[in-house]
Parts: sequence; C-alpha cells; structure tokens
Amino acid sequence: MNTVGHLINGEMHTGDDRHQDIVNPSTNKVEGKVALASKATVEEAIAVAQAAYPAWRNTPPIKRARIMFRLKELLEQNADKICELITREHGKVLNDAMGELQRGIENVEYACSVPELLKGEHSKNVGPAIDSWSEFQPLGVCAGITPFNFPAMVPLWMWPMAVACGNTFILKPSERDPSSALLIAQLAQEAGLPAGVLNVVNGDKEAVDTLLSDNRVHAVSFVGSTPIAKYVYETGCSNGKRVQAFGGAKNHAIVMPDADLDNAVSALMGAAYGSCGERCMAISVAVAVGDATADALVEKLKAQIANLKVGDGMDNSNDMGPVVTRAQLEKIEGYIAKGVEEGADLVVDGRGLTVPGFENGNYLGASLFDRVKEGMVIHSDEIFGPVLCVMRVDTMQEAMDIINAHQYGNGTCIFTRDGEAARYFADNILVGMVGVNVPLPVPVAYHSFGGWKQSLFGDLHAYGPDSVRFYSKRKTITQRWPASGVREGAQFTFPSNG
Amino acid sequence: MNTVGHLINGEMHTGDDRHQDIVNPSTNKVEGKVALASKATVEEAIAVAQAAYPAWRNTPPIKRARIMFRLKELLEQNADKICELITREHGKVLNDAMGELQRGIENVEYACSVPELLKGEHSKNVGPAIDSWSEFQPLGVCAGITPFNFPAMVPLWMWPMAVACGNTFILKPSERDPSSALLIAQLAQEAGLPAGVLNVVNGDKEAVDTLLSDNRVHAVSFVGSTPIAKYVYETGCSNGKRVQAFGGAKNHAIVMPDADLDNAVSALMGAAYGSCGERCMAISVAVAVGDATADALVEKLKAQIANLKVGDGMDNSNDMGPVVTRAQLEKIEGYIAKGVEEGADLVVDGRGLTVPGFENGNYLGASLFDRVKEGMVIHSDEIFGPVLCVMRVDTMQEAMDIINAHQYGNGTCIFTRDGEAARYFADNILVGMVGVNVPLPVPVAYHSFGGWKQSLFGDLHAYGPDSVRFYSKRKTITQRWPASGVREGAQFTFPSNG
Amino acid sequence: MNTVGHLINGEMHTGDDRHQDIVNPSTNKVEGKVALASKATVEEAIAVAQAAYPAWRNTPPIKRARIMFRLKELLEQNADKICELITREHGKVLNDAMGELQRGIENVEYACSVPELLKGEHSKNVGPAIDSWSEFQPLGVCAGITPFNFPAMVPLWMWPMAVACGNTFILKPSERDPSSALLIAQLAQEAGLPAGVLNVVNGDKEAVDTLLSDNRVHAVSFVGSTPIAKYVYETGCSNGKRVQAFGGAKNHAIVMPDADLDNAVSALMGAAYGSCGERCMAISVAVAVGDATADALVEKLKAQIANLKVGDGMDNSNDMGPVVTRAQLEKIEGYIAKGVEEGADLVVDGRGLTVPGFENGNYLGASLFDRVKEGMVIHSDEIFGPVLCVMRVDTMQEAMDIINAHQYGNGTCIFTRDGEAARYFADNILVGMVGVNVPLPVPVAYHSFGGWKQSLFGDLHAYGPDSVRFYSKRKTITQRWPASGVREGAQFTFPSNG
Amino acid sequence: MNTVGHLINGEMHTGDDRHQDIVNPSTNKVEGKVALASKATVEEAIAVAQAAYPAWRNTPPIKRARIMFRLKELLEQNADKICELITREHGKVLNDAMGELQRGIENVEYACSVPELLKGEHSKNVGPAIDSWSEFQPLGVCAGITPFNFPAMVPLWMWPMAVACGNTFILKPSERDPSSALLIAQLAQEAGLPAGVLNVVNGDKEAVDTLLSDNRVHAVSFVGSTPIAKYVYETGCSNGKRVQAFGGAKNHAIVMPDADLDNAVSALMGAAYGSCGERCMAISVAVAVGDATADALVEKLKAQIANLKVGDGMDNSNDMGPVVTRAQLEKIEGYIAKGVEEGADLVVDGRGLTVPGFENGNYLGASLFDRVKEGMVIHSDEIFGPVLCVMRVDTMQEAMDIINAHQYGNGTCIFTRDGEAARYFADNILVGMVGVNVPLPVPVAYHSFGGWKQSLFGDLHAYGPDSVRFYSKRKTITQRWPASGVREGAQFTFPSNG
Repeated sequence: MNTVGHLINGEMHTGDDRHQDIVNPSTNKVEGKVALASKATVEEAIAVAQAAYPAWRNTPPIKRARIMFRLKELLEQNADKICELITREHGKVLNDAMGELQRGIENVEYACSVPELLKGEHSKNVGPAIDSWSEFQPLGVCAGITPFNFPAMVPLWMWPMAVACGNTFILKPSERDPSSALLIAQLAQEAGLPAGVLNVVNGDKEAVDTLLSDNRVHAVSFVGSTPIAKYVYETGCSNGKRVQAFGGAKNHAIVMPDADLDNAVSALMGAAYGSCGERCMAISVAVAVGDATADALVEKLKAQIANLKVGDGMDNSNDMGPVVTRAQLEKIEGYIAKGVEEGADLVVDGRGLTVPGFENGNYLGASLFDRVKEGMVIHSDEIFGPVLCVMRVDTMQEAMDIINAHQYGNGTCIFTRDGEAARYFADNILVGMVGVNVPLPVPVAYHSFGGWKQSLFGDLHAYGPDSVRFYSKRKTITQRWPASGVREGAQFTFPSNG
Repeated sequence: MNTVGHLINGEMHTGDDRHQDIVNPSTNKVEGKVALASKATVEEAIAVAQAAYPAWRNTPPIKRARIMFRLKELLEQNADKICELITREHGKVLNDAMGELQRGIENVEYACSVPELLKGEHSKNVGPAIDSWSEFQPLGVCAGITPFNFPAMVPLWMWPMAVACGNTFILKPSERDPSSALLIAQLAQEAGLPAGVLNVVNGDKEAVDTLLSDNRVHAVSFVGSTPIAKYVYETGCSNGKRVQAFGGAKNHAIVMPDADLDNAVSALMGAAYGSCGERCMAISVAVAVGDATADALVEKLKAQIANLKVGDGMDNSNDMGPVVTRAQLEKIEGYIAKGVEEGADLVVDGRGLTVPGFENGNYLGASLFDRVKEGMVIHSDEIFGPVLCVMRVDTMQEAMDIINAHQYGNGTCIFTRDGEAARYFADNILVGMVGVNVPLPVPVAYHSFGGWKQSLFGDLHAYGPDSVRFYSKRKTITQRWPASGVREGAQFTFPSNG
Repeated sequence: MNTVGHLINGEMHTGDDRHQDIVNPSTNKVEGKVALASKATVEEAIAVAQAAYPAWRNTPPIKRARIMFRLKELLEQNADKICELITREHGKVLNDAMGELQRGIENVEYACSVPELLKGEHSKNVGPAIDSWSEFQPLGVCAGITPFNFPAMVPLWMWPMAVACGNTFILKPSERDPSSALLIAQLAQEAGLPAGVLNVVNGDKEAVDTLLSDNRVHAVSFVGSTPIAKYVYETGCSNGKRVQAFGGAKNHAIVMPDADLDNAVSALMGAAYGSCGERCMAISVAVAVGDATADALVEKLKAQIANLKVGDGMDNSNDMGPVVTRAQLEKIEGYIAKGVEEGADLVVDGRGLTVPGFENGNYLGASLFDRVKEGMVIHSDEIFGPVLCVMRVDTMQEAMDIINAHQYGNGTCIFTRDGEAARYFADNILVGMVGVNVPLPVPVAYHSFGGWKQSLFGDLHAYGPDSVRFYSKRKTITQRWPASGVREGAQFTFPSNG
Repeated sequence: MNTVGHLINGEMHTGDDRHQDIVNPSTNKVEGKVALASKATVEEAIAVAQAAYPAWRNTPPIKRARIMFRLKELLEQNADKICELITREHGKVLNDAMGELQRGIENVEYACSVPELLKGEHSKNVGPAIDSWSEFQPLGVCAGITPFNFPAMVPLWMWPMAVACGNTFILKPSERDPSSALLIAQLAQEAGLPAGVLNVVNGDKEAVDTLLSDNRVHAVSFVGSTPIAKYVYETGCSNGKRVQAFGGAKNHAIVMPDADLDNAVSALMGAAYGSCGERCMAISVAVAVGDATADALVEKLKAQIANLKVGDGMDNSNDMGPVVTRAQLEKIEGYIAKGVEEGADLVVDGRGLTVPGFENGNYLGASLFDRVKEGMVIHSDEIFGPVLCVMRVDTMQEAMDIINAHQYGNGTCIFTRDGEAARYFADNILVGMVGVNVPLPVPVAYHSFGGWKQSLFGDLHAYGPDSVRFYSKRKTITQRWPASGVREGAQFTFPSNG
C-alpha cells in the first residue's frame, strides 16, 4: 500500500511519523496512508527552507519565472494523472478536477509575469539630487496550509507566487487528499526548482502549530473553515507572522424579476451542486425577488435536479460525485433534517441515495429548500454540501439586507439585465467577490481572491496582484551622493595634463 | 485654565470625563488640562462616525480631495499657531515643529491625489464578453492612536488618507501634547469636512481599549512603543480589525572609510540630537568601519557637540529643547549611567545641564558614547534621548551583521561614495527604510513609511501608496450580460415597423 | 483701448507686432486689440523658455507641484474675473464659462499629483546584481496651440502638466479670445512659476509655423479643426517634434427604445445646444432606434427648444449666447439651408433670431432636423453650431454602423437601461470617448481625453495619465557595480588593524 | 534551390513576385532566393489580416497569451534550427545567434503577461453614481519592417505583443536574411495562432510603400537606418498611421579614472566587436577621461584584439564572423581609410583579413582608432562595423558634452565606481538607454527599448510596457444608469404581493 510522505530538500521522507488512512469517498476503501509530520519533521523542513533561501532570493526574478513557465508545461502534460489522484481521494468528477487544475495552472501562468509584478516605484529628485525608490523584497520562509476541497488548486494559489517572489515555502496540504499537491511539487522540482525551495509536509494540528509558532516562518497563508482560520490568524499574528486566513462562506444569488431565468437556473445548478457544493464559492442561497420569480425559479430548478446524475467521479458522465467523508455526509443530512424541522419547504430531498456498484460511497443527491428564512440554521451556517436554499423577498433591497447581515461575505451574484440594479448591487453589497449574471465570481488569476467579514482574516487577498504584496515586503531607499566624487575630482585634476 | 476636550460630530465635548494635566517640558508648569474620554464618550464618537459614514462614502473622491486641498491652505495659514502649540506641549524647538508640520502637510498634499490613487484594475474579456474589475472601497469607521513625539505629523499620516478614501475616523492623540492635533481637526472642519467624518477623542488606556474592542471600528493605525504596538496589533486583530502598529527603533548609520566625513558628521548631529533624539527615525548608533574612521568620527562629533545650543524651544536659535517629561529625563540619565557601568566610553556627558531661566525644565545635553558593544543595554534598548553610541568594527559586513541581528529594523543609513557598497547594503540590510548618505531616510509622502522586525506589526506601511491599500478593501466584480436584451430585441422587432 | 500682448520671461510685450481686433460676439463691438507675434517675437519666447529649462528641470517635482496647488487657489479666487473675460470675448453664458474654468482647474488639481505620476518602474536583479529602472524625464521646451471655443480650459489641459513634468512652455491661445489664458498665465507667475517657464505668445499662422519649425521646440499640443490638426501633426512630426493634434468631431447619441426618455432629452438639450454647440464634444446627431422612439424624441425636443432662452452671455438666465463670429453665424445658417435643400425635415428653424438690445450680435436660435440621412452634408460635416440632427434607424446595429462609418470618432453616447446593450456599444463603437447615459462623456481630469479616427492625430491623449507620458520621455538605466569597491577593500585591509 | 516565400493566411506563397538571391556572408555563395512581394501580394496579406481581425480581437487576452506560452516552448525546441538559419544568412557566430534568439524569446515571455498588461484604470464615482474607466483596445492591422542585423529578435520585439494585444500583423523582414523570421512565424501557427493573424511578406521598397500607404494598416513599427526611419515615420504619419521608427546610433562609453579597467576592457571588446559591431547598441566610441586612463585603455584593448578569433559563424570558437555583405565590407574599409586620412591614430588595422577556407567571405578584423576627435566622419557617422574609436578628454563633463552634441542618442555607458558620477551621468546624458558599468544597456524585455534624438522617431519605445501602449488605443467610458430600473420598480410593485 502506498504511503504519501513529505518532500523535504528535494527528497521524499516518511520517517517515523504517525500515519493516517487515505480513503476513497466513492467506496470508503483505504487507498493508502499519509505520514503525519511530527514537530521535528516540520522543523527539519523549516531549516531546509531557510537554508535554501539566500541563494534563491538572489536568483533573478526572470530565472525564477522561467521555472514557472516550465512547470506550466509539466502540469499540462501530467494533467490526467493529477486529476485521477484528485478524484480518487476527493471524489469530485474528473472533469471538475480538470477545471480545478486549470484554475491552478492559471496561477502558475500569472507567476510567470513576476518580473513585471515586482517592479518598484522610482522617484527622481524627491529633493535636490536625492532619489528614492521602493523595492518589494521577499520575506524568507513562508508556509501554506490548504483544505481538502481543492487539493491541487489552492496550493497553486500560494506557493508559485511565493517562490516566484523569492521566498522558500513549506506546504501542508489536507491530509485527506494529499497526493495531487505532492505530485505537483515533484513536477516543480523537475521544472528546475532547486531542492529546499518548496517543501511539502503532510500532517495535522501538530504540523500546523509548529508552522505557526516557529520564528523562522515569516508568513502563513491558510484556507479552511472560519474557526480554524481565526485561530491561525490570531496565533500567527501573535507570533510575529504575516497571515492571511480564508474561512467559510454562505454565498447568495439574487434573482431579479427581469433575469434571464433559464440562464440563471443553469448557472445556479452548477454553482450550487457542482463538486457537491464543497466549494467556498458555491451558491447555497438563491434569493428570489417577488413570488412570481420564486415560483418559476423553484419549478425550473426542480426540473433540472431531476436530471442530475450522481455517481463515481471517475465517470465523466456524472454531474456530482460523493461527498468527501462519511462524517461530512452525516453532517449534511443533519442540516437537511434541521431545515425541515425549522419549517423550510424541502422541495427536493437528496438523502438516501444509493449509487449501484458504489453502495458504500458517501453519496447524497441534490436537495432544494424553498421558503428559507433568516434565523434558520440552514441559512446561518455553511453546510458545504449539495443543498440549495431559496428565500423569497419582495424587493431587491430586502435581498441585499439579508446578504449584508450575514456573518460571511465571500461571494455573491445578481441575475438581472438592468444596468442600474447591477451597479447598485455591486456598489453596496458587503461581499468581496461579486458576480453580475456570473454565479461563481471567482476572480481570474490576474485579479485577487478574497471575501469580506468572517470569510477572510487579513489585509491582502489570495493570488493575483495582492499575493505579490503578501509575499513581499516593501523596502524604501533614499539616496544622495556626496558632491565631490571622481567626477569633480577629475574636473580639477586633469586639465593641466590635457 | 484651558481644557482640551474632544471633537465629536463637529462639536467640542469635555463632559464628565476624567482629566490630566498638560505640562510644559521647558518649565514643568501646568499649561492646561486634557479630558480623558470614558468608554461611553468613545462609544459616542464611534456612533457618530458610523452615522456619518454612508453619506461620506458616497461622496465622489474628487470632492473629498478638494477638502484636502482646502485643508492644506488652512494648515499653511495657521502654521505658526500650530507650531507654538507643539513647542509648548512637547518642547521641541519651533523650527523643528515647523519641519514636523511640513511633513504632515505633505501627507495632506498626497491625499489630494486620491482620485488617482483609488483607481481599480479593469479587465475586458476575462472570458467571452465577461469583464472583471477591482474597486478599492472604504472600510467604514477607522481609528488612529498617535504618540507624543510628533503630535501634529503622525495624525496627519493617518486620517487625511483615511477620510480621502471614504472612511470616517476617530483620532486619539497623545494625552501629553493633544492641542495641535485638535486644532488641525478643527481646521479640517473649516475646510469643509462634514461633522462626524473626523472625530478626536483624548484619553488613555480606557479610550484605546474601547477603540480596540468595538465591532464598529474596522481598522486601527497605531504609532508608539513596541510593547504597546504588539498589544494593539494582537488585540485589534483578535477583534477582527485591520491593524498596522508601528513600534520602536534603534537606527544605525554605517560610516565607511571613503565617506565624506564632514558631511556625515553634520548629518549625524541632526539625526542623533534633533528633537532630543525623540524620533523613531533618529540615528542612535554610528558604526564606524576601521579605527581610523572611528577616531576621526568621534573627534569631529565631539567638536560639534561642544557648539550645540540647548534651551527653550520657543527660541529658534537653540538646537535642542527639553525632553518631554521629567520621567523620561530620568530614564535617559539612567541609560547613560548604565552605559558607563557596562564599560562604554562616555566621551561627552550631557547630564546635569541647567538652562538659565528654565531651571525646572527637563534639560539634558547631548551625550556621546564610544566603543559601545553588542550586548550592552544602551545598544539593545531604544533610549529615545540625545545619546549617540559609536561602535567600532573592522569590516562593513561586521557592521551589517550588528544591524541585522538587532531586534528593530526601522531605519538605517550608510555613508560612502562607493556605488557597490551602497547597493550591497541597501539590498541585504534587514531594515525597512534605508538611506544612502541620507541619515533620516523617512520616505517622502508619496512613498510609504515602515520598518521591519519589531518596528512594525502589520502588512502595510504608513502613508503613501500603502495607506491607500490599508484604508480600503478590494472588491472584485465579474460581469456578463445575458444576450437577449433590448439590443437584439430591437433588432428583430423593429424592422417590420421601419 | 486695451491691447493684449505676450507674456515672455515674466513680462508683458506688445512690441512692433501686427495687431488684430478683439470683438464681442454679443455686440460685434471691438473690445480691444491683440498683438500678433512675428517670427522674431516667437523666437524670443523660445529662447527664453530654453534658458529657463535647466533650472526648472532640476526643481524637484514636489516643488513644481506646490506651484500648481497655489495656482488652484488663485484660479478659484479670480474665477469671476476670468469668466467675464471669456464671456466678453467668446460669447458663452457666464455659468458655462464657469463650468469651463472648473474643468480647467481640475487639470491643475491633477498636475498637483505629479510626484506620484512621474514614478518610474524599478527592477531589482534584472541579472545578477544588475538593476534597471525607467525615468520619465522632461522634453525641454513644449508648445500649445489652442482654439477659441474653450479659451481657458484647453490651455489648462496642456501647460500645467507640461510644466509640472519639468518642461518649459509656450502657449499660443486663439487670437479671437486671448485674454483669459493670459490672465491665467499671470496668475501662474503669482503662484510662483519662475519667469520664462510659461510664456504666452498671441498670433496667427506666422506664430504657429515658427513654433512648428524651430528645433528648440520638442513637443506641440494642438486643438482645433481637423485640416489644421493634420497640418500641425505632419509639419511638427517632419520637424522631429512629438505632436498630438486634436481635430473635429461629429458626436452621435443613440436613443434606445428602453431609454429614460425625459432624462435623455434633457441631456441632449444641454449637449447639443450648450455653448451654441461650439464644443468638440457636443452631441450633434441623435440616432433614434425605432420610429416610435424617434417620434417621441422629436416631440419632446421640440417642446424643450421652445423654452430655450437665447441672449447675452453676461446674463446667467440665458441658456445660449451668441456664436463666436459673424462668419461662423453665416456658415451655420448655410448648413441649415443646405440641410433643407438635401431633404431633411427642419423641425425647428433657429435662423433669424434677434435679441433685443443686442441686435448686432451673432445670434441664432436652436435648430432641429429630423430624418437626416447618411450622405447629407449636415451629417458628414462638423457644423459647430446649435443644430441637432435626428436620424431614424430600425436597429441598434444600424445606428452603430452609421457612427463607425463616420470620419470622426471623438465622443458618442447611448441612452438605455440595458446592461448588454451598453456593453456591446462601448466595446464595438469606433469612438474614443463613450458615454452610457452620459451625453458629454468628457473624461474627468484623472483620465485622458482623446478621439479616434480624424479626431486625433497622435498616439497619446490629452491631459490625465497620457499627458504625463506625452510631456516626458522614457530613459532606462541599467546598472551594475564592479565587485571590488570600498566594501571588499575594507574587508581585507582593516582586520589587521582591528 | 530553396525559395523563401510569404506566409499569408497560414499558407506559403511565392507567386509571380520578383526574386532576389540570399547569399551566405561567409562564402558569398547563393543559398537560396527570396520572393519580393508585389503591391498586390502585400494587399492580399493586408486583406487577410483585416479579415482575421474581428475574431482575434474578441478572443480573450488569456487565450491569446496561451499561444505565446506555447510559442516559447516551440522556440526553445527549435532554437538550433533557427540559429543555423541566422548564421547562414547573416554571418554572426552561432553563440551570438543564440543570444539574439534568447532576447527574442524574452519578448514572447513578456507577451505572456498581456492579461496583466492590458488592465485599464477604473474609477468609481467620478460623479454621483457615475463611473469611468479606460480600456486599451487593439488597433486592427499592424505592420513591422525589420532590419538584417537581428533577423530573429527584432521581429519578436514587435508582433508577439501586437497580436497578444488583439491586433493582426504583417511582418516584412529584411530580404537579406528572411528565413529565421519565417520559420518563427510558422512555429507561431503551430502554437495555435489562427491563420491570418500573423502574416509574413518578404520584399523591398514596393512592399514597404504598400504597407505605408494602405488605409487598412493602422500602425507601423520600423527598425533600420535613420534616413529610412525618418521616411517611414513621415510617410506613415501623413497617412494617418501610428508609427515608431528606430534609426541609427553612435554609442559612447565613458571610461573614468576610477573604473575597474580590466572589466571595462572585457566589456568593451564584446560591445564593440560582437556581431562585427552590426548592432544599434554596439559601443563604437570609448571616451577616456584623462590621458593616463586612455593610455592604459588603448594598451589593454590592443592586447585583447590580438587574441580575437575571426572566422566562420558556424564555428562557435570564433569571436567574430563575416560582415553581412561585400558592399558593407567595402563601406567599413572606406571609413577606416577616411579615419586615417582625417588624422586619427589607427592602432589596430583589421583590413585585409583572409580566413582560410573562407577566402571569399566578407571578413575583416577588429580595428581600433585612438585620438579620434569631434568633427571626424568616423565619429559623426554610424559605421556599423568592427571599428572602435577612442577619444581622449580631460573631464567627465567634456565627455558628456561630446555625447550630448551627437546626432544620435540610442545607448551609452559609463565605467566608474563612484555613485555620484554615475547618477550625474544618468541624469544629464541625452541618451535613451544608459548603462552604468553595463556596456550594452539594452533594457530587459519587461522594460522598453528606445533612443533619443535621431535614433527614434515616435513617442513610444519598442517592446516592454511601451509596446502595450503602442499596439493599443485608449477608450474611455463614462457610465451612469437612470434611476428607475427594475430595482426600484420592484421596490414599489411587489410589497403588496408580499
């Protein structure tokens, strides 16, 4: 049986660390084991990253970028292999894994432009013959702690730009589906990344806490649930680190009476149920403005849900695979029961689904609630499952008030044809990523990803331009030269020899 | 006797708060009282700032900028009055107060360019007919907590850009010298700033803690000592706020054998003793490379110190005024005694100075130590007084190692004519603000201010471009329009009517 | 009688130049004379500007900016005086002159941010220990040639940024209404602009040709008619100058069936008839999509035209003043006759208007044509008068085809509520400045002004960010220091002495 | 025998055009023929490029960028083949061809970041609820006309960014060595560039004039000699095109008394004699400050020239290959004779060299002149051959005066260790590309290339950030939505149904 170890200084380690099973969500069979790094193992990785730092920092940015160019090629060549690992450990359908990987590759592409992105600001004559400029210097050793739901993409949000900026890096992927991130790290080495620049340690809280407390780690990027994000942020900040910690979400879509409803419904189906809703940008609430809108919306969603195909992720004809673990399955089912109990209309009940040939898999059909209200737990909590809640309001303002009052502020969307409605919404909604007729407004790789409120702890967003700022620190130089150098010396000395 | 109160919603409050004396450092006479805001008073200010926010946020940036234009005029017209308040409460010489104010005005000038600075990034066709752009939206209510040493300038680092970005603000100045900041806030109202957009509360820990814990405050900027900076950072971050907290410093100048020594000495005199060394960018350590350099340097410094004129700040012929409090005076004297005890050579002893006519003032002459070594308390601690330490090393690398090993990393400087030495130094020194033949490399207002290591807690620097990012948050909109709007409707409907 | 002379090296000159009358359009009385500079006079101005250049170029940008800050104050203080000069010489209503001046002041405000705008790009380690950065250096002597229709604003598009960037300048205003530009230049000197940095020469083709041929002039900005713009561009370019030459326009507004018609009509009234249509951004063609839209539009326009008040510009209750000259009046009347002859429906005929008390003024009422077609001279030519043409089409695409086929591409606008229509229009229309429900989409001062096709000759737009690029040239420095400077020397020499 | 044709719409054409021999400079044997496009052939290419434009323009920038990513891979895979073509047709040593190609690839790498580079500026609330933003839209069909001396690199300066920005392109390479550019264009198609987006036409003046006069061509980039550059600029500008035309050069290096002379000499050897001096950035004049410096410099250069190996470019052990044509060889020899006649000291005479086995090749050794003076033709003209002139001056200012008085201002360099001298030089020298101890200060691909004075006609530099501006035009949209859309409609309509 395969054991997934750590990549430290360019070599695989499994050592005498504790281990944990890796389970296929579609069958609940154990596919392998993952080593859980001890404090000592993590410290070894940190020491290695620190040792690799000085030479890497001094490598010209264009040379660092060229390794990213080569990595992009290798990721494209190895895409099928990576996606199979994702599907086997996470459960999502292969196509969806490919979509995830593609988004990850886009971050590698953006890291290729790091010589442009690292340009500092240069001011001539801030005073007489005094110049001043800023440089964006690397931080040193950085760390990334990433979640199970995008095992390939989220690590690629972090370390490519971090190393492109001249830092060295320690990645701790989710221990549930660690293999794709590890393979990608190996490809990075094949692409020319020197040993020790990128290290992968697998592990659990012990590994996390070591990264958060070690003085040699200068920055931590985290993606996960809000309580852990808050813990990571506070602990890391207290220990003098720069931290950005991305937490949970509850993303609402407003459906206006003038929306192109067929389009909106198609969009919502993918946004709500794709990857079983295990996405921090999934739409889990549709807020319909007007009962007529709501009635039509629910009707059309119900019809499309009936055609949704759920099954093993290795089969690309499926729309939805299993959820990640048995525990997560039960948690979602609990939320559905709770919703019923709270008085919401369960229009479609996805519970109790059995997929032939995968009877032990963590399967669950799509669920749809209507008449969900503020205050219900299915509205206040992030369910992270294939459950879409419809809320009914009379006005757009009412819909916006619901969104603005929610604890999370990650993504949101409006469906309308009206320029004014879209502009008012985008301006006044307290959410970091806003879609206009775009249900999953995940910014492209050359913009940055970040929510507001409890969805993000930290000042700077993930990937894109903000990540350059996150993975570098400003140094400002002010320079004046004394007047009497060789120039004027020469002027007075040489004429007699002329 | 004058009582300095709070400016809340455009009106002066003194209320039933506790009070504290304001003392003139040159005489130790009580000049007035300052109200110390209770929790309730601070909460009232927060409520007011929150109420003023929506309208101010929607005011076009160019209109907000125009108030800054007008404020600049008023600051220039009222400069003498402001500087007199500074000198009377802080002690620094009037000329020096004018320099401080000028630096503050430069930040107002920079805030005038906020329409340019707030420009977001716009991408056409991130996908087919899909556009995406970022906006930098204001945060809401922000707060600033500022130190005694630059009572006019440091507040102007903060609130002008914060309000120019569309936030409302609560300033808590130092309770030792609160009057200049209050006068400036009144001028801002005269310039057209609506009531409630900028509020000033005076106070102590109670006020600070209220600002740090209230959920309606979204960001806090702090300048002060490192222990308090760390406290403010951790507390604010735990409470979900964006925080930047600037702490202490120990700024070293390297003097190379090829330096223009006369220039370097003049520069060091001002940088070490100006404003009694009560500046976070003061040079407190000169590291001479080579004994020949050190001998010449000490000789020349000694000679210049002999000519230094110490006396009341209202007299512009003085070079140095009193230190801020009796307690601070005693603390500095303690450090001098400690340095002698530790074995450093006290070349010039500034203790025991009496200024005729100001016998009760907190006066102290310039002190100079030679042969200071790493490990001595006078090297590891920030003294914040007119004490310059000379260290002797054999190589430039040794000098840089001392600086890089120090807990602080605010400012530093090298004196040399050599391009390579300057570039190597600026590249490898672990300090945020670097001077090449510039002893106080405080970035100009259109660059940003920030140290490294224990000198700054937070990701983004003060004033300049970074302050725009600090006082705003990124929102990214992704927009696609459904295809069948009026355009295509019109295309098919109208021809028959044509 | 007043004679308007030249401002050269800070002093007024009238010399032995030829002269031309300045005529009040409201009365056709001669108000004064303007000197027409000879070649020698212009060459003197050029020599003066060249002499002033070295010192001005080396003045730190922030100091140059501060003169712009002061100029803004003076322009605001002298606004009434400036506007009176505009109205008396140009004819436009005082309110409108104030609007013009305000737009001009906004360019001065933008020039205040020149230290930010001049920042170059700095790259560390383009190779090992090699740095490279760009600087935007001034060009030297620049010239501006400006039209009669915005006698205060267009000069302020040019010289404030030119001088803020470190250039010296020669302005040649329109000889028909030269006084406001001259007064503003005098205020700039009062604001602290050194003598010789900004010079004003009045004149005609002789002055223009001297500026275009003299080798000491490095750049020319021109605004006027297309034939002259083309001449200026070609001549200047052939003589090795950087040139931007802004020409004529024919700006179309599309009115969609879903437009807020009352709003659109109000907007069109101002855009078509304001300042008698003597604006390069005036809307002179409204293209209605669908006959129903057209019928309603024409009806509402007709009603509003009936209430339009035409009269002397000194009376702010008037909506429209006289046109600039008797010749221009006759030319416009000729176009109206031509339109009738070509078969367009003259819905409102503005000819033959007499304003009591101003019977000799160049007065003309608003005219409205319906059913204008492509190929008619009133559509292909720029009339530059208060004549609005309505065209009728069946589809939005047809409307866009008309616009895209026109020789000019300055401004355009669409009235709609539909997001998709607006986006499609803005994307595909071959016009440089596009309004969505904004009839005069003149970019604000922190964006740049420029048309496409025959409306602009040159690569870079006027004012805003592009003007910084126009008035500066890129210099790129690549720097590497030899390894063996004082740093390493010191390292090996001093230890033995340590 | 091989015939090099045109690539039009993805297919090779040779047609009935005229032809010209392609000659190997090392042997003067005919290696093949190149078709010289007729007006009709060029017009066909233009028509094709215009037809390909609309679809390409609407292809999202990231998709265009991905073709550049793939092209980079293909260029690297085909590097040997490309370089062999360069050497066979141009003569330069293979290593040097590889250096050229690498520089070209760097421009392809930069074009990969076009989604970042095309970002426009977005301003929220330029007025109440009015937004404004700029877009950088493509121009349409663009053309590039490139010289013989960098047959692979200069085309790659142009078309990759042009097409990445959404334009379609027609390249007319030098007819002397057309094969490498054609092969690269074929690789671009293999990388996924749609047929018609990039077309290659070979030809002479007829082709050039067709490109310059056809209205469908919107922009022309040219690199060549100054007289042709001026012709191209004036003709293109008169025909309404955007033009940048790069001309000749005479690049001076100042050698200061404090320079690291061994380094400087090595640097000068490569910069003066590399590629036989047939580079617009070659150093052709060394200005020594002080006779002592000059004596040492000449001595060391002489010694190194003695070791220079001249021979066939296919042999990488050679330092210099043949010059491009027999005519060019004779022209260079004529300049050497002229220099002797004018009184300069011909320290090393490279004339009369025979390379065994390549007796018919265009061979010439390195020549060195000392005591060259202003006014000599060998100083005022660009020789474009392996001839280095040493000038002797007494002061740095004198050296700078010589450079600043020269007609060309492409590149320059100073050798010094002194920070002040370097800064003064870089600030005040009238040259666009400046090196400090860097003899060939060709900006890296993420900065821009451009000289001053007669070295460049046009506002914007080649490649790098400026090329994005050159190959796109600014469109500024100002947008306001009418207030009464679906949002407010819904607000008033629906409550009664709630």
